[in-house]
Amino acid sequence: MAMRTLRDLFEHQLKDIYYAEKELVKALPKMVKSASSQKLQDGLEEHLDQTRGQVERLEQVFASIDKSPETEKCEAIEGLIDEGSSLLDEKADPEVKDAAIIAAAQKVEHYEIATYGTLCVWAKQLGLEQAADLLGESLDQEKQADMNLTHLAEHEINLAAETV
Amino acid sequence: MAMRTLRDLFEHQLKDIYYAEKELVKALPKMVKSASSQKLQDGLEEHLDQTRGQVERLEQVFASIDKSPETEKCEAIEGLIDEGSSLLDEKADPEVKDAAIIAAAQKVEHYEIATYGTLCVWAKQLGLEQAADLLGESLDQEKQADMNLTHLAEHEINLAAETV
Repeated sequence: MAMRTLRDLFEHQLKDIYYAEKELVKALPKMVKSASSQKLQDGLEEHLDQTRGQVERLEQVFASIDKSPETEKCEAIEGLIDEGSSLLDEKADPEVKDAAIIAAAQKVEHYEIATYGTLCVWAKQLGLEQAADLLGESLDQEKQADMNLTHLAEHEINLAAETV
Repeated sequence: MAMRTLRDLFEHQLKDIYYAEKELVKALPKMVKSASSQKLQDGLEEHLDQTRGQVERLEQVFASIDKSPETEKCEAIEGLIDEGSSLLDEKADPEVKDAAIIAAAQKVEHYEIATYGTLCVWAKQLGLEQAADLLGESLDQEKQADMNLTHLAEHEINLAAETV
């Protein structure tokens, strides 16, 4: 795919994040199963629901620019998910595994924050107002999800981890 | 490497970000060369200097826990850098290429923000105060670098990109 214009770049990144969100819908259930803390399980379950909503929202973005939804394999998210999965396969105390799950999830969140942030700026520059609004909603959700994970890491997993 | 304790996890992530920063020192000069905007070139040059400083700061963190600096190959940062590089090889108008460079750089920044954030929380939980302070310095630098890139994307590359 040639990427000569900002519109080409925009569509490329859109396919990239669509691929990433769909991969995440597949990967999150394993993280939920590996988590021990009930609050972490609940938080990840909630984020799985949100991620399904973000997949649908991306389909609305494609529709808003008269395109069918398409994925494009994204090496970065593959690497992030593989890294997270390999940590889950390690033997570790439950609190340590929870800390590892939060770390892996926050790396994914930050990948999405960067990508949605970029897509929002480009959508505005391209005059794609509807796309910009939809992408902005997902951006806000990702930022909130990241803050929730930081809170869990600092206040819920903290005391248990101090002893290990 | 077994990862049974939070200390194991901490050392693993430390080797991961040490690898990432060293890869970035190698990758940034190509991004500088590909950039057209003088402000973007200057910003990336400044970030290259900072990244070299972050490599040294990580060596201080290793010293503070009586370990020799070691890298551990990190699939995620490889994916992020490869993705960025492949965009640089595309033919595109200079402004479009600048927009692509900023997007790639922000993904890397966010990877580092997530990793340094996690390392800071863990260092505090492990009572490694000196390490926590050093990691906090790099975290603040990465957040500032990300904000600078957002500013460039919105205000410097913006007008040029609107026409393409």
